[in-house]
Amino acid sequence: MHGLHLTADLRDCRCDPGLLQDAPALVRSCLDAVLASGLRAVDQLFHRFPDGPQGPGGVTATVLLAESHLCLHTWPELSGVTLDVYVCNLGADHGAQARALLARLLALFQAGRVERQELQRGLPAVESEGLCP
Amino acid sequence: MHGLHLTADLRDCRCDPGLLQDAPALVRSCLDAVLASGLRAVDQLFHRFPDGPQGPGGVTATVLLAESHLCLHTWPELSGVTLDVYVCNLGADHGAQARALLARLLALFQAGRVERQELQRGLPAVESEGLCP
Repeated sequence: MHGLHLTADLRDCRCDPGLLQDAPALVRSCLDAVLASGLRAVDQLFHRFPDGPQGPGGVTATVLLAESHLCLHTWPELSGVTLDVYVCNLGADHGAQARALLARLLALFQAGRVERQELQRGLPAVESEGLCP
Repeated sequence: MHGLHLTADLRDCRCDPGLLQDAPALVRSCLDAVLASGLRAVDQLFHRFPDGPQGPGGVTATVLLAESHLCLHTWPELSGVTLDVYVCNLGADHGAQARALLARLLALFQAGRVERQELQRGLPAVESEGLCP
């Protein structure tokens, strides 16, 4: 169950502002990026939030992967996007594909500022007492 | 766009083993936990992986939240589950609800071992030069 979780929080995105409210285009871009990165999409879902007093509603999009998942949220009023790429490395190391997927999505949004974080996840298979929550 | 991202990676789950392959039951449990925690589900999706030589296939389930998302993956052959709860705190602090949601899911799976991590996410609204990727 060892896995790699990459996050990126983007501000000041210089892509077409319409992209951040265009759920079908975002899903297509995500699926293209998944395929180009050598990962395998098994399903996808999006939700567009209603427009509000601050402007157009954002989008949440997720792609379920054979290797785990990709999640994306947009805030058009802030030119902001958050990205999550999580891959389980059980059986094979998908870290390179995860990094390639995140790089493709970062290139799509052309953010002026990006905060990236990285988590190594998962417990080894060996039994160990005394680690209950 | 400040947010809180909680992860938990579970092994040796002592819940009914059938739960880890029962996608509808997992989604129901997730939706109940979301509601009980004061968060708002806007949509959900699951995928059950096919059975393989190592045993029954696992499940990926995601609940899209008004506050961001919940993702869950199960590995029945390892009695393992990974959990992600991510809430954006734009406009209001949803950290307490996120922690309550994670606690409910941890109680559901009764894991023998849990690795938990926590990320503070997001960039402030102020402009800052020189932080391009």
